[in-house]
Amino acid sequence: MQVRKTAIEGLIELIPRVFEDERGHFFESYNKPLFVSLGLPMEFVQDNQSFSVKGVLRGLHMQHEPFAQGKLVRVMSGQVLDVAVDLRPDSPTFGQYETFLLDAKLANMAYIPEGFAHGFVALEDSVFSYKCTNIYHKASESGIIWNDPDLNINWGIANPIVSEKDQELKPLREVFPQAVV
Amino acid sequence: MQVRKTAIEGLIELIPRVFEDERGHFFESYNKPLFVSLGLPMEFVQDNQSFSVKGVLRGLHMQHEPFAQGKLVRVMSGQVLDVAVDLRPDSPTFGQYETFLLDAKLANMAYIPEGFAHGFVALEDSVFSYKCTNIYHKASESGIIWNDPDLNINWGIANPIVSEKDQELKPLREVFPQAVV
Ligand SMILES: Cc1cn([C@H]2C[C@H](O)[C@@H](COP(=O)(O)OP(=O)(O)O[C@H]3O[C@H](CO)[C@@H](O)[C@H](O)[C@H]3O)O2)c(=O)[nH]c1=O
Ligand SMILES: Cc1cn([C@H]2C[C@H](O)[C@@H](COP(=O)(O)OP(=O)(O)O[C@H]3O[C@H](CO)[C@@H](O)[C@H](O)[C@H]3O)O2)c(=O)[nH]c1=O
Repeated sequence: MQVRKTAIEGLIELIPRVFEDERGHFFESYNKPLFVSLGLPMEFVQDNQSFSVKGVLRGLHMQHEPFAQGKLVRVMSGQVLDVAVDLRPDSPTFGQYETFLLDAKLANMAYIPEGFAHGFVALEDSVFSYKCTNIYHKASESGIIWNDPDLNINWGIANPIVSEKDQELKPLREVFPQAVV
Repeated sequence: MQVRKTAIEGLIELIPRVFEDERGHFFESYNKPLFVSLGLPMEFVQDNQSFSVKGVLRGLHMQHEPFAQGKLVRVMSGQVLDVAVDLRPDSPTFGQYETFLLDAKLANMAYIPEGFAHGFVALEDSVFSYKCTNIYHKASESGIIWNDPDLNINWGIANPIVSEKDQELKPLREVFPQAVV
């Protein structure tokens, strides 16, 4: 498993070793003792899977205490641009974001700690899968509008397909008034 | 989550609830509190993923104590015929097997307890994924030849693509001489 740190503390990309042979390929996408040795000792208690047609954007979502979720995200088919925004109040990189081009052929994944907003846009028809450190609790979920002017995220696509629920999300400066000057 | 028991104690099929909308779909493939309430309180410590071209048969494999593995198996793309053989020495259904037609469109999965031999044949190009209750320990793995005459499994395909390693697996009556009369 290769590990690539980003400029944001705790936000990392993981690239598993893929074994190829005449049948296809095989890899471990999660291995608890290995993750512990990589500094990721958390327990994952829920796995989710979604399918998105090309052009769908899901996000930006976040879960609040006591149901905050760390997420280990990856793509099993297709390709997405994955975005993680640091919204940890005490973080020196608050408001900064990182993108990951998650591709089923690379089998790369990202670990997004608790306290981030998360979303992705499907660059192809894509199967997306993630492991969560906490269970889903609808009332503890909120988010930031995907095209927030302060975040100014380059999604690389002009008119994404966004759910009604996600179109109603608020901008960062309304959700964190103290943080944006 | 729907649960279907099989004729073999502990071997079950699980069918999650899939939410569909204009973007695609979403479902929970694992939820610890829910699995506990379904009588599946085990911890999963490793996730594996493989890709198999149509016609590939992987199996029959089993892992021995202290590295025995319970497996929660499913298909993320394509379709496989999945086979679980009860090889628990004290089981009243020792030597019996069940098949599951795992289909990405159904999102159905099977839980195969420790002490079973397991394998599958890819009926289409397929992405297969499973969660394990123990980590992989090469020396603790063995298996039974896929076309064992005593098991007489109907794989539904004539000349599967089988790895060299799997072609060398022994028949049931050599591995469990006391069990086959
Ligand atoms: C997240 C979640 C959702 N659901 C149900 C509620 C809805 O009926 C349906 C779709 O939920 P939505 O919230 O629209 O799903 P989606 O927009 O893909 O958002 C999810 O996927 C996002 C992108 O990965 C995550 O960042 C979000 O945390 C997560 O909420 O699935 C569950 O049953 N369990 C869940 O964990
Ligand atoms: C099972 C396993 C394998 N490997 C490595 C060893 C090999 O270089 C490569 C492929 O391993 P193989 O043993 O040929 O994989 P495969 O025939 O698909 O068998 C696996 O998949 C089978 C079918 O699901 C399981 O029933 C077996 O328990 C499991 O061994 O991956 C790992 O690194 N970790 C693992 O957990």
